[in-house]
Amino acid sequence: MAVKIFLNEDELPRQWYNIAADMPNPMQPPLHPGTGQPLGPDDLAPVFPMNLIEQEVSQERWIDIPEPVLDKLLIWRPSPLYRAVKLEQHLKCPVKIYYKNEGVSPAGSHKPNTAIPQVYYNKVFGIKRIATETGAGQWGSALSFACSQFGLEAKVYMVRISYEQKPYRRLMMNTWGATCVPSPSTETEAGRKMLAIDPNSPGSLGIAISEAVEDAVTSEAHGRPLTRYSLGSVLNHVLLHQTIIGLEAEKQLAKTGDYPDIVIGCAGGGSNFAGCAFPFVRDKIAGKQVQIIAVEPTSCPTMTRGPFTYDFGDTVQMTPLLPMHTLGHGFVPAPIHAGGLRYHGMAPLVSQLVMDGLIEPRAVAQLETFAAGVTWARTEGFISAPETNHALAAVIQEAKKAKEEGKEKVILVNWSGHGLVDLAAYDAYFQGKLADHELPQEDIDQALKALEGFPKPKM
Amino acid sequence: MAVKIFLNEDELPRQWYNIAADMPNPMQPPLHPGTGQPLGPDDLAPVFPMNLIEQEVSQERWIDIPEPVLDKLLIWRPSPLYRAVKLEQHLKCPVKIYYKNEGVSPAGSHKPNTAIPQVYYNKVFGIKRIATETGAGQWGSALSFACSQFGLEAKVYMVRISYEQKPYRRLMMNTWGATCVPSPSTETEAGRKMLAIDPNSPGSLGIAISEAVEDAVTSEAHGRPLTRYSLGSVLNHVLLHQTIIGLEAEKQLAKTGDYPDIVIGCAGGGSNFAGCAFPFVRDKIAGKQVQIIAVEPTSCPTMTRGPFTYDFGDTVQMTPLLPMHTLGHGFVPAPIHAGGLRYHGMAPLVSQLVMDGLIEPRAVAQLETFAAGVTWARTEGFISAPETNHALAAVIQEAKKAKEEGKEKVILVNWSGHGLVDLAAYDAYFQGKLADHELPQEDIDQALKALEGFPKPKM
Repeated sequence: MAVKIFLNEDELPRQWYNIAADMPNPMQPPLHPGTGQPLGPDDLAPVFPMNLIEQEVSQERWIDIPEPVLDKLLIWRPSPLYRAVKLEQHLKCPVKIYYKNEGVSPAGSHKPNTAIPQVYYNKVFGIKRIATETGAGQWGSALSFACSQFGLEAKVYMVRISYEQKPYRRLMMNTWGATCVPSPSTETEAGRKMLAIDPNSPGSLGIAISEAVEDAVTSEAHGRPLTRYSLGSVLNHVLLHQTIIGLEAEKQLAKTGDYPDIVIGCAGGGSNFAGCAFPFVRDKIAGKQVQIIAVEPTSCPTMTRGPFTYDFGDTVQMTPLLPMHTLGHGFVPAPIHAGGLRYHGMAPLVSQLVMDGLIEPRAVAQLETFAAGVTWARTEGFISAPETNHALAAVIQEAKKAKEEGKEKVILVNWSGHGLVDLAAYDAYFQGKLADHELPQEDIDQALKALEGFPKPKM
Repeated sequence: MAVKIFLNEDELPRQWYNIAADMPNPMQPPLHPGTGQPLGPDDLAPVFPMNLIEQEVSQERWIDIPEPVLDKLLIWRPSPLYRAVKLEQHLKCPVKIYYKNEGVSPAGSHKPNTAIPQVYYNKVFGIKRIATETGAGQWGSALSFACSQFGLEAKVYMVRISYEQKPYRRLMMNTWGATCVPSPSTETEAGRKMLAIDPNSPGSLGIAISEAVEDAVTSEAHGRPLTRYSLGSVLNHVLLHQTIIGLEAEKQLAKTGDYPDIVIGCAGGGSNFAGCAFPFVRDKIAGKQVQIIAVEPTSCPTMTRGPFTYDFGDTVQMTPLLPMHTLGHGFVPAPIHAGGLRYHGMAPLVSQLVMDGLIEPRAVAQLETFAAGVTWARTEGFISAPETNHALAAVIQEAKKAKEEGKEKVILVNWSGHGLVDLAAYDAYFQGKLADHELPQEDIDQALKALEGFPKPKM
């Protein structure tokens, strides 16, 4: 019985899968917040290069991966598919558990799958420099790695409290040659404004986004190299790039003769989940029996408790209005340790598929996720990112359910990244400093009030 | 051109290679420090289980890897062999560079290759608990992982200053269920004695070894589960277990049609270097042309500036006398950031082969190693452990030399581990806080004075 299923390099997928071509109900368009009208490509041109905007709105089912992108992806791809034999033996449930190991990338997560093509498309469009924001640093480090591969400058605005408390991913960015500054910074109007109000501001993802977008759109005026902005999740083209995960997994599972009864991933903005799941959602649309579960924290229950409606993608209301499950752009989740899952919204493509009943959302409480992560580390050996532990908790739930039902099942889970730079979270767990908080309905209702009068998606 | 060469799981080597069977001059025996007589197996029995002692003195060329060990090694082995294409393109030298990626293990280094079999042999010998020491935590974390796999208790004495300043590897140990205490501790006679002298002692590897050995040999008397001690480098059986690296690399290189002109590894105690190099040293003994380079820091130049003589393996003079290159057991190297290379001695097997001209030692200064690591990160993508950067510096030296000589060469290097939990060292480098120190000859002479009157190896 093979524990690891490799693909040869010539089996690396040559195309990404665009689920827009197969959705029973098309995704509703992003709206201009001023006019309420659907957004045109030109509206996004100051922020993103046009070739990525074209991908964002493409309806083509298969999109060729450019050769220079394949060349860089080969640094760590195809990633191995593992059979979680040791966990299976521990659980004693009638399940086969396969996991896609995205922790083998230089940045230790799935994020480089989109950082590499994004930087490539910027480069061929003539962009010399990319600005972005990062919270705990997963995205900032992935983008820095990608920029070092293509010779572009990277400027990362990192939420100040993470910059100070979590130096390791910042140091990864430096090692790859990027410039990382704590946000709010004195380098943008938005940052200076925030510092004038509170010189000790711990920062937030919302402020950091404002700074990065401002940096991008004002770079030419400031005499900086031509700059665009880059986002690590939520948008269609980001999810598209991540589908290489699921496409590889399909080929690897085919070698085993197994097909998953259940596909599981954790979902913050939705990109690692979608990347693994969308090729199987396609099969489901075509009539195949497969259960697809997106796992979120109970402290930020976007899909399970948030309505599907138009909202801003960011807290500072700079983005277009996106049709998505949201807790309201002003919602501030409790400081759980899975920073990558603390997003108020959810990718519009994932949200639409939840509405269509093709994806089943599930919320898991924090302590259960860490318990799952510890079980994983002591069986499979690898230490998972706190985000990934949400998916692992659902795997264990489903394995036990299979035992109760007396059914044999095949489970595929996306192991989105390792937790070697997130060990402080495990420490807090072992020291009993973590707790589960049931999110009061009033808090959600309060945050959603800000959306009164916003356009509603057509159902 | 393939960037990664995988082995299937059924190609995993089934035997370790024991170089003792092929050495032109046999390794000289360890001596009892009291009597000066060669050590018998029984002398070691309170410290190690007899099955490992038998391996330590074995002259068999091939030693079967037990099935339960193979089963655990499959968690991450066979490890991939990578072609460093991006570095080759950057260097523009007439070389092919292959690297064995040992960073894919759960602990992120080569150390689990011996932790797994050591824990297994202890388990079949009836041992319930293992005590060990660790400096920066590489070995302690690997042993903790291995103990979690076989259900043994692990107790790690970690040098206090590392315990406080480098919490991440300690947290890895906790995640795998081990108990890790700062050394000196109040739990042993040795620790209490040290704390009585200096309650704020930062600890040292020497003290931590004393504590771990005392813990092992006194456990029964204290009513603890039956305990033995475990060491992560230097000893013959440790190097033996690591030969799986080179044996895999041989098979992988055979698939490419290439054979290395040069094999390179960094050497602290010698185990990762030996693990990759010994199968090629065997070829060299048999007449093959291959250059084998062991790289050490100029600040701890054991092989390049230390004599080959009998010395204690530890600073507190508890071990047998070992025949090795040494700077004297009292030698305290400058606090360079490659903690794994700060050992005063060198594995006896490696030392003997250096004496026989089969291994070429080379010392590299710290700044050059970090420069090499940064070049590596910005080409190959992966961030290396500071120890590994010593090997990479020699790779770059040899590539440039090949260009000067106008010769095409194939280089194999052991990429012994990633540096994601060692990023503080990169930070110090970027901030200009690191420097090269030429080690004064007086310091070495001074440390070697302690060896006056010690037995000398027969030459």
